[in-house]
Amino acid sequence: MQRIESTQNKRFKTIRSLNTKKYRSELSLFIAEGLKVVATAMENGWAPKYLVMTPDAQANDFCRKVVQWGEERGAMCLETPPALLALLSTAENPPDIIGVFEQKWMPPEQAIPGDHQLWLALEEIRDAGNLGTIIRTVDAVGGAGIILAGDCCDAYSTRTVRATMGAIFSVPLVRMDKQAFHEKLKAWPGEKVGTHLAGAVDFRRAYRRPVLLVMGTEGHGLSPEVTAICDQLVKIPMVGKSDSLNLSIATALMLFEINREQLGRLDG
Amino acid sequence: MQRIESTQNKRFKTIRSLNTKKYRSELSLFIAEGLKVVATAMENGWAPKYLVMTPDAQANDFCRKVVQWGEERGAMCLETPPALLALLSTAENPPDIIGVFEQKWMPPEQAIPGDHQLWLALEEIRDAGNLGTIIRTVDAVGGAGIILAGDCCDAYSTRTVRATMGAIFSVPLVRMDKQAFHEKLKAWPGEKVGTHLAGAVDFRRAYRRPVLLVMGTEGHGLSPEVTAICDQLVKIPMVGKSDSLNLSIATALMLFEINREQLGRLDG
Repeated sequence: MQRIESTQNKRFKTIRSLNTKKYRSELSLFIAEGLKVVATAMENGWAPKYLVMTPDAQANDFCRKVVQWGEERGAMCLETPPALLALLSTAENPPDIIGVFEQKWMPPEQAIPGDHQLWLALEEIRDAGNLGTIIRTVDAVGGAGIILAGDCCDAYSTRTVRATMGAIFSVPLVRMDKQAFHEKLKAWPGEKVGTHLAGAVDFRRAYRRPVLLVMGTEGHGLSPEVTAICDQLVKIPMVGKSDSLNLSIATALMLFEINREQLGRLDG
Repeated sequence: MQRIESTQNKRFKTIRSLNTKKYRSELSLFIAEGLKVVATAMENGWAPKYLVMTPDAQANDFCRKVVQWGEERGAMCLETPPALLALLSTAENPPDIIGVFEQKWMPPEQAIPGDHQLWLALEEIRDAGNLGTIIRTVDAVGGAGIILAGDCCDAYSTRTVRATMGAIFSVPLVRMDKQAFHEKLKAWPGEKVGTHLAGAVDFRRAYRRPVLLVMGTEGHGLSPEVTAICDQLVKIPMVGKSDSLNLSIATALMLFEINREQLGRLDG
């Protein structure tokens, strides 16, 4: 295992640069933090390009197993002091191992819904934490994938990846510009459901599969163009003083509602 | 209106100190950012102690009205350059007005449920953003209040207040140490519902009011003591690879489920 002793090490600089969107895009790589998440990645068939860890991390049996597993899949393993590893992470409590992986994007033409699938489209989502939480929730409901439409925040930012708690490795992601998204939406074979403050239909209803749920941006909701293409505009009733819910909350309520009859009962 | 021109101004230093938990606790004050949130506070009967704004903010008619309203309620109004106001905020896009308010805590003995009420208790919640989002969701479902049990993060941190989007001014908050919370829980007259990975009951069921929903900490869920006192341990079924949802998501799904029959239908 190679050791990195300096912030001037070339590989260190490359990996550190992945905390900025520019270099993530150029290199098409991203950072996943912590042993559990790195292990989840490999369970899901993702081979790390680099594994960087502290000497202490290797005292852990499971860590050694994960590292061996990574090496068998071609990962370059690097050891570095905790103070340097902390510089590769943006977490409040820095991990003692990180993995660097290649970004995977499903080609838009492959985003074709199966008969009973549930897909989510996010129009111009801006908040990295919301996006990560939403990816985690889509995994929890067995969603088929997420379409990121227009100018969205980066799904592979370290903050988003952290919020997915490993779900980044199991939920297919598709990027589309606005025009391509409008075309996809028009051609969607099942129900296209948008949430809208002006929606007159209660969200507690049955949905026709394959469903595409479309959620708008944090500040302004769905664009007029996408609103016009949706089959149904539904609304989540609220009784408080607020006129809206957090985007990740509203998305989760919709996903579980759409899945309500499909989701097996624990006790029935 | 007084002007603050220096970071050494005594009032400026006092207000800036409210970005740390120590001084928030000592002074029992907190910062709310932005015109909309400050206006929401006053609509809910909260009188600001200070309003601090940039000269530009006062070009806005609604801002002038809010400032006048604040002054009538005894607020000291202060003008400061944008660069100084930005130092009082932790937001990525600093606001052009902030309000400083006194913290309000409902005394534990007043946390007595009305017949049809829905209360939430959070045991040792740690994430400021999750707590803010949860306060916002409790407002949206018309929850009666939130009990913060044990060692929780600070409900009046600037980050939490920001995530509530104004709901901090309408949802009663109660603090209890573990012992007091266990007593409250034992004496609760309605159903005490906990969510638990080992729960055998599906969360999609009817709940008996007054309901107290108890949610555990992000990392470890409910403590064994609280688990033992709950009447029902329910679980939200998931189909993905993850074994858990984000805490604010799980809490929202539970709150809307408990409210499902009470919540008026938009279209029925």
